[in-house]
Amino acid sequence: MSGLQRGRPRSAHAHQAVLAAAVELLTSGGYQRLTMEAIAAKAGVGKQTVYRWWPSKAAIVAEAVLSGHLAAAASPLAETGDVVTDLRDWLSGQLARLTDPSSTALLRGLTAAAAESDDDAAKLYERFTGPFRQYVVRRLAIGVQQGQLRPDARLDAAADFVIGALIYRTLTHGNLSGQGGVDDLIEVLLAGLGPRPGTTATSPG
Amino acid sequence: MSGLQRGRPRSAHAHQAVLAAAVELLTSGGYQRLTMEAIAAKAGVGKQTVYRWWPSKAAIVAEAVLSGHLAAAASPLAETGDVVTDLRDWLSGQLARLTDPSSTALLRGLTAAAAESDDDAAKLYERFTGPFRQYVVRRLAIGVQQGQLRPDARLDAAADFVIGALIYRTLTHGNLSGQGGVDDLIEVLLAGLGPRPGTTATSPG
Repeated sequence: MSGLQRGRPRSAHAHQAVLAAAVELLTSGGYQRLTMEAIAAKAGVGKQTVYRWWPSKAAIVAEAVLSGHLAAAASPLAETGDVVTDLRDWLSGQLARLTDPSSTALLRGLTAAAAESDDDAAKLYERFTGPFRQYVVRRLAIGVQQGQLRPDARLDAAADFVIGALIYRTLTHGNLSGQGGVDDLIEVLLAGLGPRPGTTATSPG
Repeated sequence: MSGLQRGRPRSAHAHQAVLAAAVELLTSGGYQRLTMEAIAAKAGVGKQTVYRWWPSKAAIVAEAVLSGHLAAAASPLAETGDVVTDLRDWLSGQLARLTDPSSTALLRGLTAAAAESDDDAAKLYERFTGPFRQYVVRRLAIGVQQGQLRPDARLDAAADFVIGALIYRTLTHGNLSGQGGVDDLIEVLLAGLGPRPGTTATSPG
């Protein structure tokens, strides 16, 4: 009998099993309770095998994100024809989902993994937040086409604000004192704080 | 001779020394290279002493943040009389500082510490981001008083966006493809994307 399984070699199967085990344990139990021992046990491999491939649980989580095993369940914005409603509904929905325990565990695991791997950190965040960005920009672009948003709207910057606020609230469980509600966020995003910059060149002070 | 030093007992001195050592190593070498061994050596205490008090480097970083040993150097916004200029200058300055290696190390250390301590996570982020929030809200409130910003401006929501975007860019080193520039962020924040929500109730679709 050959030492290789049909298709992938045994070590590749074990490798995949470790990643899958880490994902399942992370989303069910949280990053804090994730251990190399538990990952090895769930994957059905020896702890030494796990340590041979990865120095830490953070490194496993990082590979799970970069290999696509671990991803946030981003969903596209609705296209009802009203961009304001679609944006508000999407933001409410994402906030509700991202602040549930398994999503918070996922994002916290990601931040810990990024902290442990300087080289991969930007890639990790891009992989994780990219789908959210793309959905937001795509829906806003339709709003521009349909004349509901100003033609010169800075869609990338708007996406930075939306994704940044989502990350901020997810990391804090939306618990920060003084954080505004979703309607307030939408109001700022759509209407802004004040007149266009050019008109404030002469200040009253 | 008494077992207690004058003032604080010896263990309290060692405790402080460990926190100070962790802060210095983190900001000079980054979170990835921070180890319990290096912290113990720099603090001049045994490794077992460090492990007796903290289970991991993440726990030391968490205590350093919560005890005020480790804080981001937030600075207030200028008050030149022109809120747009002050906001733009401040945001540019903070982004430049927050994406330097020591600030990135600090924020990544914070995120790793928060990932390892579910109970303290929200407190950690509040402690870290609170000063930035307060400075932004305070300056915007003056802009409202001086008639440069709309009187009903949602300042807390605006601060959510600003702080969220700062965190997002710091974590990613500002490297995400497609991220808008500071001027674009200011444009969205001040002028918004479109007409007030009420005016879009009838959609063209």
